[in-house]
Amino acid sequence: MLAKYRELRNARAGVMQLGQDPFGVVFDRILSATEATLDGNRVVLLGTNNYLGLTFDQSCMDAAARAVREEGTGTTGSRIANGSYGGHAALEARLAGFLKRRHAMVFSTGYQANLGALAGLAGPQDHLLLDADSHASIYDGARMAGAQVTRFRHNDPEDLRRRLRHLADQPGEKLVVVEGVYSMLGDVAPLRDIAAVKREAGAWLMVDEAHSLGVLGEAGRGLAEAHGVEPDVDYVVGTFSKSLGAVGGFLASDAEDFDLLRLASRPYMFTASLPPSVIASVTQAITVLETQPLLRGRLHRNVARFHAGLAAAGLSTGPSASPVASIRCPDQGTAIVFWNRLLAAGIYVNLAIGSATPGGKPLLRTSICAEHTPEQIDHAVVTIREIAASLGFFQTVDAAE
Amino acid sequence: MLAKYRELRNARAGVMQLGQDPFGVVFDRILSATEATLDGNRVVLLGTNNYLGLTFDQSCMDAAARAVREEGTGTTGSRIANGSYGGHAALEARLAGFLKRRHAMVFSTGYQANLGALAGLAGPQDHLLLDADSHASIYDGARMAGAQVTRFRHNDPEDLRRRLRHLADQPGEKLVVVEGVYSMLGDVAPLRDIAAVKREAGAWLMVDEAHSLGVLGEAGRGLAEAHGVEPDVDYVVGTFSKSLGAVGGFLASDAEDFDLLRLASRPYMFTASLPPSVIASVTQAITVLETQPLLRGRLHRNVARFHAGLAAAGLSTGPSASPVASIRCPDQGTAIVFWNRLLAAGIYVNLAIGSATPGGKPLLRTSICAEHTPEQIDHAVVTIREIAASLGFFQTVDAAE
Repeated sequence: MLAKYRELRNARAGVMQLGQDPFGVVFDRILSATEATLDGNRVVLLGTNNYLGLTFDQSCMDAAARAVREEGTGTTGSRIANGSYGGHAALEARLAGFLKRRHAMVFSTGYQANLGALAGLAGPQDHLLLDADSHASIYDGARMAGAQVTRFRHNDPEDLRRRLRHLADQPGEKLVVVEGVYSMLGDVAPLRDIAAVKREAGAWLMVDEAHSLGVLGEAGRGLAEAHGVEPDVDYVVGTFSKSLGAVGGFLASDAEDFDLLRLASRPYMFTASLPPSVIASVTQAITVLETQPLLRGRLHRNVARFHAGLAAAGLSTGPSASPVASIRCPDQGTAIVFWNRLLAAGIYVNLAIGSATPGGKPLLRTSICAEHTPEQIDHAVVTIREIAASLGFFQTVDAAE
Repeated sequence: MLAKYRELRNARAGVMQLGQDPFGVVFDRILSATEATLDGNRVVLLGTNNYLGLTFDQSCMDAAARAVREEGTGTTGSRIANGSYGGHAALEARLAGFLKRRHAMVFSTGYQANLGALAGLAGPQDHLLLDADSHASIYDGARMAGAQVTRFRHNDPEDLRRRLRHLADQPGEKLVVVEGVYSMLGDVAPLRDIAAVKREAGAWLMVDEAHSLGVLGEAGRGLAEAHGVEPDVDYVVGTFSKSLGAVGGFLASDAEDFDLLRLASRPYMFTASLPPSVIASVTQAITVLETQPLLRGRLHRNVARFHAGLAAAGLSTGPSASPVASIRCPDQGTAIVFWNRLLAAGIYVNLAIGSATPGGKPLLRTSICAEHTPEQIDHAVVTIREIAASLGFFQTVDAAE
């Protein structure tokens, strides 16, 4: 049945001719939120989603280890069929409180949160208006919903307005879906303008704060808080596998009858619930978000240092100074060689090629963590700059723009 | 957007008029693999998927707690985008070895394993032949694949044969999908006959061993091992959230180019990988399966005791003596009242009503654990018998058949 992937096999072989397999990296050992060993060598982790470094927070690790001892390694069942543990309900109450929403529900992965939110909220009669750069889980959820899907140009409220006007006479609800921070380029949605368009059209708005929760906003609630438009956001979706340092996802809302989704959303109903250890570390991570605002300050200082360093080196990282910064490459071969050379120099970043990248343009994705030291950041900037220069970046980048 | 669920709201209100909310159970505390407290009362857990009781196995708990301390609370990334931890690759090697397959890949939930396996293997040109009683995750995976779906009558190889013959001239691959043990009634697939049909038609065969792994077969590999047809099974899918006591799932196979699925299966690529603690407890649980065959013996003695007790009490539990035994109820109201009375008597079972039940018939689902004591089982049998009698089961069951 795998014969259909012959082209993919050839493409992979081509990538691997240029060095290590970028999609098959296996770390020997993870040493901290910012370091690992790979093939015996120490590398700086500059390609995670561990923005606050909470995977190694002592209080989160303690909470997880304690929960394993007290309530076991897993629940072995779905919450609808086999019941919830107290921790699941407590986490939902904590999430709702943190997000200032009436309701929250927890999913077993962030991927399933988008699947379950969209398939639960939208039916074949309804319209989903998706930013063209939406994450795969949003596209997959839209497909599972069987809804009518309209893509609008990335971060373009005017295009969204035109498309909503075009749909004005169509039956069904209209739900606009955007992300707080887009995972590939680190750019943020123009949320005030999108909220205005949504209000004007009488549509609903969902914001996926996967990469912005814990990062943006005075209290860390994400882009909607930072832009002051939370009342316009009808549904907030997010994940536990980025700033919160674990795995899982959530949907939160003030919507009446919210709990009916628990009986209607198949990716929620037909999956085993998260183990007590995961629930415990996420619950503790929310406490850390609430009680340690300095952590967010440290992240933003690191982000500013990294972006300033790259800019001084002549490398553009896009309009938003966010924890995600991507270096666009002129072609795929250059991106692969760049990635390999960085790794050889002890810096692990993410390589993105193919259809998952905006516009299909190859890029190196980096991410900054609150736990990075200034020395790690400065060393990364210098190394990136040197390799970029040796690859002829500073002659070709302007021409490629 | 939730106005579409008005009927569901009314149905739920009807269920709750008859007692507690069976779909909103929240245990205060989990005491062991077989006991919890609920609303302050001690209850016996007779409705989990914790067949071997490994959630409280000391070696699995130790492995999970150690992994949290050594490698943190989570990975914060997808394996394709952000790299794998050593534990992920090691677990895949262990799984492949245990299952005697060349390859295995790990998914973040069992639900995503079925989504990812089917969406990865089958395309719009291909045909999926699904047992009518297949789990929701199989139906959802088939939908995500965009494949052409043919349902055949539950556990009916003749019907499967007819349908495959009907498709003989159609282009595309044909993949037959069955489960080892069906989760609702505990019945097993007639796998020898299905394998013969599959061979005859030149089709492929996938077996979901979710409820049979660790339970059936000399070595605990599942129904295909027990029926001696492993060479006919092209793809094995399964979960970590049942006998293995955690969360996650897997796909295993001898297929050439298997690893291409890692670059083609969206529910694998676009989701955060499992935390180190989960990987560690699952890896240790496989060691327990391999080194403690007596545990499986204890489970089967418990299963035999429970089934014999129910049979002596005049309650039929279907043809298979499996860890899942279900009591069919004449109508939904009786099922709900039965469920509530059992809970009041300190026995927690699962209530299944509506479309997820075979033939839409309401039932009480029970499951047996290796850690249940003979006293717990005997007490459950007596209690079930008493409540069934008080509800008039022994007058009406024959008429309802």
